[in-house]
Amino acid sequence: MKFGVCYYPEHWPEARWPEDARLMREAGLTYVRIAEFAWHLMEPEEGRFTWGWLDRAIETLAAEGLRVILGTPTAAPPVWLAHAHPEILPVDAEGRVRHYGTRRHYCPNSPIYREHTARIVRALAERYGEHPAIVGWQIDNEFGCHDTARCYCRACAQAFRGWLERRYGSLDALNAAWGNIFWGQIYTAWEQIGPPLLTVAEPNPSHALDYWRFSSDQYVAYQQLQLDLLRAVVPPSHFITHNFMGSFTELDYHRLAEPLDFASWDSYPTGYAERSADAFYAPGEPRPAHAYDTGDPYVTGFCHDLVRGMKQAPFWVMEQQTGTINWGRYNPAPRPGTPRLWAWHAALSDADTLIYFRWRAGRYGAEQHHAGLLQHDGSPDVGYGELLALQEELPQLAALSEAPLAVEVALLLDYEDLWALELQPQREGFTALRHLFVFYRALQQLGIPVDIVSPAADLSRYRLVVAPTLFMGGEERTSQLGAYAAQGGTVIMGIRSGFKTPSNLVAGTLPGSLAALIGAEVIAWHALPPGEGYRLITAIPELKGPATVWAEALAPQLGRATVLATYPDGPLAGKAASVSHVVGRGRVLYLGWYPTQAQAQSLLTYLADKIPLRRLAESLPEGLIAGRRGDRTVLINFTEGTLEAQIESQVIAVPARDLVTLIQD
Amino acid sequence: MKFGVCYYPEHWPEARWPEDARLMREAGLTYVRIAEFAWHLMEPEEGRFTWGWLDRAIETLAAEGLRVILGTPTAAPPVWLAHAHPEILPVDAEGRVRHYGTRRHYCPNSPIYREHTARIVRALAERYGEHPAIVGWQIDNEFGCHDTARCYCRACAQAFRGWLERRYGSLDALNAAWGNIFWGQIYTAWEQIGPPLLTVAEPNPSHALDYWRFSSDQYVAYQQLQLDLLRAVVPPSHFITHNFMGSFTELDYHRLAEPLDFASWDSYPTGYAERSADAFYAPGEPRPAHAYDTGDPYVTGFCHDLVRGMKQAPFWVMEQQTGTINWGRYNPAPRPGTPRLWAWHAALSDADTLIYFRWRAGRYGAEQHHAGLLQHDGSPDVGYGELLALQEELPQLAALSEAPLAVEVALLLDYEDLWALELQPQREGFTALRHLFVFYRALQQLGIPVDIVSPAADLSRYRLVVAPTLFMGGEERTSQLGAYAAQGGTVIMGIRSGFKTPSNLVAGTLPGSLAALIGAEVIAWHALPPGEGYRLITAIPELKGPATVWAEALAPQLGRATVLATYPDGPLAGKAASVSHVVGRGRVLYLGWYPTQAQAQSLLTYLADKIPLRRLAESLPEGLIAGRRGDRTVLINFTEGTLEAQIESQVIAVPARDLVTLIQD
Amino acid sequence: MKFGVCYYPEHWPEARWPEDARLMREAGLTYVRIAEFAWHLMEPEEGRFTWGWLDRAIETLAAEGLRVILGTPTAAPPVWLAHAHPEILPVDAEGRVRHYGTRRHYCPNSPIYREHTARIVRALAERYGEHPAIVGWQIDNEFGCHDTARCYCRACAQAFRGWLERRYGSLDALNAAWGNIFWGQIYTAWEQIGPPLLTVAEPNPSHALDYWRFSSDQYVAYQQLQLDLLRAVVPPSHFITHNFMGSFTELDYHRLAEPLDFASWDSYPTGYAERSADAFYAPGEPRPAHAYDTGDPYVTGFCHDLVRGMKQAPFWVMEQQTGTINWGRYNPAPRPGTPRLWAWHAALSDADTLIYFRWRAGRYGAEQHHAGLLQHDGSPDVGYGELLALQEELPQLAALSEAPLAVEVALLLDYEDLWALELQPQREGFTALRHLFVFYRALQQLGIPVDIVSPAADLSRYRLVVAPTLFMGGEERTSQLGAYAAQGGTVIMGIRSGFKTPSNLVAGTLPGSLAALIGAEVIAWHALPPGEGYRLITAIPELKGPATVWAEALAPQLGRATVLATYPDGPLAGKAASVSHVVGRGRVLYLGWYPTQAQAQSLLTYLADKIPLRRLAESLPEGLIAGRRGDRTVLINFTEGTLEAQIESQVIAVPARDLVTLIQD
Repeated sequence: MKFGVCYYPEHWPEARWPEDARLMREAGLTYVRIAEFAWHLMEPEEGRFTWGWLDRAIETLAAEGLRVILGTPTAAPPVWLAHAHPEILPVDAEGRVRHYGTRRHYCPNSPIYREHTARIVRALAERYGEHPAIVGWQIDNEFGCHDTARCYCRACAQAFRGWLERRYGSLDALNAAWGNIFWGQIYTAWEQIGPPLLTVAEPNPSHALDYWRFSSDQYVAYQQLQLDLLRAVVPPSHFITHNFMGSFTELDYHRLAEPLDFASWDSYPTGYAERSADAFYAPGEPRPAHAYDTGDPYVTGFCHDLVRGMKQAPFWVMEQQTGTINWGRYNPAPRPGTPRLWAWHAALSDADTLIYFRWRAGRYGAEQHHAGLLQHDGSPDVGYGELLALQEELPQLAALSEAPLAVEVALLLDYEDLWALELQPQREGFTALRHLFVFYRALQQLGIPVDIVSPAADLSRYRLVVAPTLFMGGEERTSQLGAYAAQGGTVIMGIRSGFKTPSNLVAGTLPGSLAALIGAEVIAWHALPPGEGYRLITAIPELKGPATVWAEALAPQLGRATVLATYPDGPLAGKAASVSHVVGRGRVLYLGWYPTQAQAQSLLTYLADKIPLRRLAESLPEGLIAGRRGDRTVLINFTEGTLEAQIESQVIAVPARDLVTLIQD
Repeated sequence: MKFGVCYYPEHWPEARWPEDARLMREAGLTYVRIAEFAWHLMEPEEGRFTWGWLDRAIETLAAEGLRVILGTPTAAPPVWLAHAHPEILPVDAEGRVRHYGTRRHYCPNSPIYREHTARIVRALAERYGEHPAIVGWQIDNEFGCHDTARCYCRACAQAFRGWLERRYGSLDALNAAWGNIFWGQIYTAWEQIGPPLLTVAEPNPSHALDYWRFSSDQYVAYQQLQLDLLRAVVPPSHFITHNFMGSFTELDYHRLAEPLDFASWDSYPTGYAERSADAFYAPGEPRPAHAYDTGDPYVTGFCHDLVRGMKQAPFWVMEQQTGTINWGRYNPAPRPGTPRLWAWHAALSDADTLIYFRWRAGRYGAEQHHAGLLQHDGSPDVGYGELLALQEELPQLAALSEAPLAVEVALLLDYEDLWALELQPQREGFTALRHLFVFYRALQQLGIPVDIVSPAADLSRYRLVVAPTLFMGGEERTSQLGAYAAQGGTVIMGIRSGFKTPSNLVAGTLPGSLAALIGAEVIAWHALPPGEGYRLITAIPELKGPATVWAEALAPQLGRATVLATYPDGPLAGKAASVSHVVGRGRVLYLGWYPTQAQAQSLLTYLADKIPLRRLAESLPEGLIAGRRGDRTVLINFTEGTLEAQIESQVIAVPARDLVTLIQD
Repeated sequence: MKFGVCYYPEHWPEARWPEDARLMREAGLTYVRIAEFAWHLMEPEEGRFTWGWLDRAIETLAAEGLRVILGTPTAAPPVWLAHAHPEILPVDAEGRVRHYGTRRHYCPNSPIYREHTARIVRALAERYGEHPAIVGWQIDNEFGCHDTARCYCRACAQAFRGWLERRYGSLDALNAAWGNIFWGQIYTAWEQIGPPLLTVAEPNPSHALDYWRFSSDQYVAYQQLQLDLLRAVVPPSHFITHNFMGSFTELDYHRLAEPLDFASWDSYPTGYAERSADAFYAPGEPRPAHAYDTGDPYVTGFCHDLVRGMKQAPFWVMEQQTGTINWGRYNPAPRPGTPRLWAWHAALSDADTLIYFRWRAGRYGAEQHHAGLLQHDGSPDVGYGELLALQEELPQLAALSEAPLAVEVALLLDYEDLWALELQPQREGFTALRHLFVFYRALQQLGIPVDIVSPAADLSRYRLVVAPTLFMGGEERTSQLGAYAAQGGTVIMGIRSGFKTPSNLVAGTLPGSLAALIGAEVIAWHALPPGEGYRLITAIPELKGPATVWAEALAPQLGRATVLATYPDGPLAGKAASVSHVVGRGRVLYLGWYPTQAQAQSLLTYLADKIPLRRLAESLPEGLIAGRRGDRTVLINFTEGTLEAQIESQVIAVPARDLVTLIQD
């Protein structure tokens, strides 16, 4: 495992650079990411390039043996460009132009912006492609940040029509795919179609879903534009990546990650605990009390496992929190020692490299209250001390990193399913991400590692595939999962799966073609308001408590599926609530209600015994993260009290904010 | 009582239509409503009509003996029309154009849209006016839905000026009526006047009220345009109606209902419990726990009694919920058996006909999660089963429907009063609708049936008129109510009555001309924040507890009014809180505070004994709806426990989710 | 102390005016403010003036000996003007034009509006400047009300660029001052700069702060335009003032007050308790229960002391609540007797004059539910009675007013600091105003009078200066406060001071140049979420409890500062939390955490003994306001129970809603 830092030499006097570089080396850093917001400095007016400062910055870093990652600076179009070409500015969902002065003030569909992008990226690549200190590239910065995933400008409307023509071929096909017969909104000319902007009622969900797909595709294309330019110039040894925002779901990260050399993400545990946890926990659901100054380790872990799953491969943390941030609600300082736990957690999750954000706290703009490894005045901050202390553990971290990480379980996350359900949640508080997170936490409590992957990923390497909500079914998915099960795999499928076709229409008889996998039909689905539940009788003794949130009644196909749970009374009395279906050498289990974490844990325990799956514990206490790589088991305690876990008949006490490594005999 | 269903043949293969028609007949349905969103299919481009599909759909239904209601399709302008004439699109209260792609994307003031409306309505009427299967017409669909009651486009601004010229004659009159001397906003030319759009402070309430009146009038005019076209073509035997949205208050339903043959409304009890109940209950006020899967029977009943009161005549439910809907918060499935209770409740309320929405759950657009009588795949859903089971009770329902419904009490609802108070609530949480609902629930608990009517309705048929807030007084109202009382009627008037003139200015000495009716002046009015109250001493022993929310001090005119309640201490110490005033052979009682439901019930009990009024019970338990038609008394229990009621010395137990019919000897 | 009233003769028939004037005289009123919304009546079309009505109104008042204050009518541009010149209309922060029809529909930067302003103000001054009944002028009305402090129109953008050129001289200086290197947003031409409007991310805080400064400056300039016009025409004996809105913070009231003859404000205690108290109390912080119908006396007092501090001189209440208002949440009526307490509270606070708002409740527009001294119908309302009763106490009030008010403590409020912290609160719930208010209440509980003044005010008259958050430091402030301390003054400084430079960049080593005053550096700052705190050990025995909300670690400069408090454990273990530093003959105390009111009170008690300061009590009960002028001590009880206070070894019981005056032997 290696370390690095994000650095903005342009913010500081050149005379300071050598000292910065020296301090970086002394802290054991390998990489420095620079330049991702420095377009203006590279090209202060159109076509006039000024590389001197960057040449010197790179040389200064190289002189201390540091290796440089260059960011293409397209997340921050210069003012001169935006002012001269206001048509590059994005338009929001209310039709308002969004202005320059901060960052991300561009529409990725703008032909003009693509021209300017090509010029600066090519120039940068040509200037530094052969520089020996450069090892890799970050394209742009955090695509979609600040609500920029979807733009509603004229260029987008135009591009959307082209995208639709390519997808559907004819207006008849589009009208059928979108169900435009509903409310009589049949299109008779392509130019009638635009973004779903300020419609009188909620827009047609098929229209909206395609707009979200289109918007995501445009970022994929915009990234590809830069990828092609870079690959044409820089040596093949240079890596190219993009820094994802972990739990951000408005772009299809699977498609964005596909052409990259590896995936990376920006990890701010306390910020995610304050700002993103709402997306993971249901309203009113209890959250870890210790999260305020450590982050929520389940949220952090989910993002690690999601980013690793993007390419089913090791990944980088391109920005790693090192102190207080500025975009949370309360922005508490991380508890001393927590950065160490974060590093171990990342290593346990197969992160290759951690790049700290940022080298020195900045004096300018929006991030003035954001900590760095150094303070504003250049003196070491707590983060720098944490980093120095970590150097003693580098051998252990390296040993851990080199050991294999064995993952037997996949959790399926499909961005388009998330979007389709966001467009039509039907029950307030239900989201596909929360449903995934229930299973994720249950797996974590059992010490079962998991890859969070696309349904289209290679599933053959897993013994269990958990697919809480495959909202859109279709033949392709059915045969894919069927083939996986037929080869001996186990699949857990959950509520609301197969409800929709890929163009976001209801499938007909539910759950559409997935019925063949499940061996049952869904004959009723009931949303349940908070506080209401239906009693259950189950064949799995540990699986207790009522069905809440959402309950489905299943009709097993005769002689095919075994009933695992039934509603004894209530509106669905006598109907099956869960079935198990043998498919080839494997099996598919359908859970017809929204499980609590305890129910998910019971179900997984039952299956872990049956399949079987390796698991580290019966049930880890909350706040204790446990994982194994090779012969090493690591237990990390994110709480302020000692926690105990029973690992293979051995009871281990892990001190507060500390970790224990067990090495197998 | 008859039944029917809403059907969208255009959503399904033509080959299926005969089976649908057969299943409808087998379920005992009489009516089928069709075509209200099918403009595009009737006229896929301007002036080219395609009637074949509709001819065949009607024939298929007619072949099974079904009778057809045609909807004019103007709620869904085709895309080709909206795209060619963007000036028909509505503009919202922030000045933004609202786009097509869903429905209701038109401004009723648009001259162009009125032309197109005339063409399609005339063509439809001419095509089917003589068709033997057609029995009636629904104009447009749910005027005002999706926040379309008020448009702020240029055509509206223009039309508003004309409306004002006709109303006021001169600018001087308008300036006086609106009190434009306030803040010196005198208009000196008609073209200076526009909608109250994005004013710096809250707009002048006289200006705003007139804009709301104007907006409502424009829908009345737009409906009349269609009415005139239809009446000119279709046989007189055909009925013409519109489907109202029960508790919706942004349009003057009394004026809209006036020219229709009968009123109808769209009843979704669980949806209203989730979405409209906020308008009926005050923040924090307890609501029926059982409402989540049965709807709130008081809200449902209020709407029935309001729609019946629109024309003081039987009415239709044009859309009746049959299962899960898609526009609530949690969208629970109706508890099994509830559709039966809804049908009985409607029959008890003098609904003639129930049209279920919709025949088959749809696969397209916004309503994909909305249940029908059939499932998405065409198999029967729970709703169809409920309907079949109901057929056994048809004789009893018919007998009930044929018996007379005797109503002795009117509750006055004036839309303009609601608007004026919405514009100036003065105390957060106060609305005229909530004030009405307090009295409504109190009447329901006593088993006293009530018509909710306009103050301009024929009141002579009632023994008691309850007018909680006649905010705008004026001579006309005073003499109308005075005449009613003089003939022996009893009137309850409540707080904030007569505060305003019809142009929404303060009346002067309060309550303006209504003082003559009340026999007292209102010399002080105090808003009370939550938790605060003034003690009361009353002459009605059961009327207990303090005055909360709003308290007025009354000065009875010497020798005219009797004091019924007094404030013994506090800021209004010694002042009268309620007075009773003899007017001719009748009397007017003024209640000077906002009553709790219990207080309203005590007052009504006192008056019911005095007048006297027939009432079924001392106090019905919550969730038990009781009513009588002729010699039949029906008790409907919407809760999950057995409820008991004492009906004329007889204690009746009504099982959970069941009903009991008593027939008088 | 004198009294007056705000009067709108134009709202009432001319025949009534003499009676109004007589009733005013009988109630002992001296002043009448008129005409501030009457532009249209003075000039019903451009250039045509109609003074007759105003001549007669003034004569009628003068005939009863009343003295008249004229308002310049520019807060209400006539419709004819706004319609003819829509470019004068303000634009909101979303870029939308805000329309006429209410008031304040103008941009103070509009050259056209300035021309029209000059014409009407000059004409008014020339007409009435020599009139013997006129004694003074109010310019415009409540600058900034209805969210008009900041406009985003083209004229503003243009003027902003000029303002920036004058401030910074060059683009290089501006780019440096704003830190535009951040995210590469360097400006290369002046015309690229505009208001911070709809930026993609939160705007650059340096850019935004300058826009807020600019916006405030434009009102200062707009006021100066009117001041210059008036001073050129009216006699020097006429006063000129503006009516401020107490706690409103979007304009720099110190700069606005500077050129005025005296400051005045509009005091609506119940309205402020309902609407402004959120700005003073933190979310969840308990508030006085009695405030609902008396107002919050700490909020009212804060505003009095702030307005007095504006010019370190007596002030007026230009609008004084007299009954129910219309812009609160619940708008309760003031408890009987409260207007008397308000008058005494104002007198105790050195208010010269109280002008009641308004004479008679209005029938028109937005304020129809707003009480006056008379009711809508012209009969006396409660307020008139309260005023008559007050006449008996006029001698005592006069005696109090004539006695000197000795103030030894200054609380520093800087509007730019408030803005900079509002732009970057960093911890949700933290505002500089709340921080000030904690100290303010603590001072009130001790009966220590305080001037709330600008840091630039003359501080030499005070023995203690409390500066909770001087967010922006700089050499000027440092030397100013240093000089004050050197002369023997005591300064309390608090958290987040000196964090920023005047252009809103981080200062570097914290707290920048203020470190010289404090004798320490701030080496860490931790935001603490609700419920979290760090233990403290302090040298001041009464100062108990943990540090909450925000905690800083201090590094005292060797041998210079004395440590007053330390963190014994937790993340800042061993670090100083508070230091005291001798500066010349005085001292500076730095408190490194956000104090509770109790902590602030303990600290102030400790210093009051040490300095020493006069204080009336150890701790007054909540709701009891105590103050001394000369030999008179007044205790005012705003609660509904008797309260006791120990004043110099004497225990005084003050009855509910009453007051006690003690006269020193």
